[in-house]
Amino acid sequence: MLVDGEQFRTVWAEGPTFEEPVVAMIDQNKLPFRFQTFRAWHLEDTCQAIKVMTVRGAGAIGATAGFAMVQGIMEDDVEAARKMIEETRPTAKNLTYATKRVFEAAAKSPSSLSIARIEAEAIADEDAESCRRIGEHGAEQLIRDGQTVMTQCNAGWLAFVDWGSALSPIYVAKRSGMNVKVIANFTEPREQGARLTSWELLNEGIDCTVAPDTNLSFIMERGLVDLIIVGADRIAANGDTANKIGTQNVARIAKDFGIPFYVAAPTSTVDLECKTGADIPIEHRSQDEVLYKTGLTDDGRIERVLVAAPGSKALNPAFDVTPASLIAGIITQNGIFKPREITKAL
Amino acid sequence: MLVDGEQFRTVWAEGPTFEEPVVAMIDQNKLPFRFQTFRAWHLEDTCQAIKVMTVRGAGAIGATAGFAMVQGIMEDDVEAARKMIEETRPTAKNLTYATKRVFEAAAKSPSSLSIARIEAEAIADEDAESCRRIGEHGAEQLIRDGQTVMTQCNAGWLAFVDWGSALSPIYVAKRSGMNVKVIANFTEPREQGARLTSWELLNEGIDCTVAPDTNLSFIMERGLVDLIIVGADRIAANGDTANKIGTQNVARIAKDFGIPFYVAAPTSTVDLECKTGADIPIEHRSQDEVLYKTGLTDDGRIERVLVAAPGSKALNPAFDVTPASLIAGIITQNGIFKPREITKAL
Repeated sequence: MLVDGEQFRTVWAEGPTFEEPVVAMIDQNKLPFRFQTFRAWHLEDTCQAIKVMTVRGAGAIGATAGFAMVQGIMEDDVEAARKMIEETRPTAKNLTYATKRVFEAAAKSPSSLSIARIEAEAIADEDAESCRRIGEHGAEQLIRDGQTVMTQCNAGWLAFVDWGSALSPIYVAKRSGMNVKVIANFTEPREQGARLTSWELLNEGIDCTVAPDTNLSFIMERGLVDLIIVGADRIAANGDTANKIGTQNVARIAKDFGIPFYVAAPTSTVDLECKTGADIPIEHRSQDEVLYKTGLTDDGRIERVLVAAPGSKALNPAFDVTPASLIAGIITQNGIFKPREITKAL
Repeated sequence: MLVDGEQFRTVWAEGPTFEEPVVAMIDQNKLPFRFQTFRAWHLEDTCQAIKVMTVRGAGAIGATAGFAMVQGIMEDDVEAARKMIEETRPTAKNLTYATKRVFEAAAKSPSSLSIARIEAEAIADEDAESCRRIGEHGAEQLIRDGQTVMTQCNAGWLAFVDWGSALSPIYVAKRSGMNVKVIANFTEPREQGARLTSWELLNEGIDCTVAPDTNLSFIMERGLVDLIIVGADRIAANGDTANKIGTQNVARIAKDFGIPFYVAAPTSTVDLECKTGADIPIEHRSQDEVLYKTGLTDDGRIERVLVAAPGSKALNPAFDVTPASLIAGIITQNGIFKPREITKAL
């Protein structure tokens, strides 16, 4: 998608030769205050970039892992290389999916390096294509000209290779000539709505207003939003959906006001090993993420400040699970499905 | 209430003589990072303190205005002094109530200065007493030993002269020997829950955990809270209640999980000129309050940082109105009333 008018993907491979890729990526740790790209010349650099979240988001991590595996094929000990990649973010499912695909493709062929690169490119392209199709289904079936869509956190192109999940229908609608506006919920404590979603939409020239998480009822009561689309971190077999903390608040309040609440995610997000949302483990993160805020000072420095009373303690669950009963539909690359019927999308 | 083990009110009068009060107050602009008191020796200083929110909160402003009026009685032009006080915060009802009482008491008497001072002290004491009684009704009828109470924003003693409204039942329960815990919702964008409520409760030795506003459903779903008590900025005749933005979110989600939701407020908060919540005007504040956060750096400076993508725009309504149907009861100094019957409390 667009950054300052120029087309970018989140992650891509560059020369020096087709078989020796440099893995290039947008440095997401610097966003939204600085736009910089980072180039990982060696396997170790690429692994480090995944680990420190220079690149983040399921789809983007998967593609990066695929390219890292191409770099790993050149190593003396390919198995050790593969293990190094897979251990960067142990819970990311897309990561092992990508290393396995590239590793196995290369193993079958005498010209393993080009085959590996072709496979890694395919993984990245498939991710982008799935997201584009999510956008088409969503834009065609759900969004009307002039509407305002609310979203939580960032399920945009930065989390994938391109297009994104929840934001993809908005991008497709805009490119097909519709006038569509967005309300991006702040999503405390990490404020991805204000930082990343707002940044993406500003760059695409889409009218975006950020709203504190406290504003949900106020906004919906006044009819300021027509439709809600959020992403998903994991979807259980019964359609219960884990997503960034606060998503369940949005779904519950939307139900009170009769506003349709949709989830957008590639089918790889469905985890059949989780029968219901109760089977999805919830990560609890450091309370410092809640008590401190990081941002840009007036004179251009990045500074961290304590915003709570000194000595305060805080809760910090990273996700909540929205019951399937509150979800109008799940938008996948294969179409829109009722949450109870999500396994039909696979 | 307690600050570092010492008993304080929000605002009080000091010598040099009984008739020439210096208005002393906690400097709330410096909280929670610095505890300082401010002394206003002259009428102009007291007015300025109200204006720049050195003192804030309905009850605290009322008491300050009463003391300011004593200072004003000493001026050549008493009417001009009264006008100056009343124009500091034009929408604060308690302010004109206090200036009128002190002005009229002094007008009736030859020893107008002592009479004015006595009247101003009475206003402050009545505010503290109303709040203490709110605490007694709430603690006796609603709180059980070992329970956890959730609150929004800061309706503590800092907003009044002493005790507070929503936090008063918690203070009374604690002092009567009950073990009571609090979850303080952050209340973005100004984070009064994390800054002021947490500060008050830490000083009173009450177990308090701050929670991002995104955590509501997560907390209630897991049964981490037994009871909710919030304050009120204005209560309509039908029981609809305007309070800090996000209160309606709390009430709606509490209803889904069957958690009792109470409002605590002195009866002066009821505005019979508002038949329903629709008659209560909602203040919209600067978007900079949303896009920037102010806090303490690791090396002890207060710094303001931008936390959203540069160029973002934001919504910032200061209040929302919770429908009476979502409120289990309103705790006043005269007892606990069903919201539809709030006029019986007057």
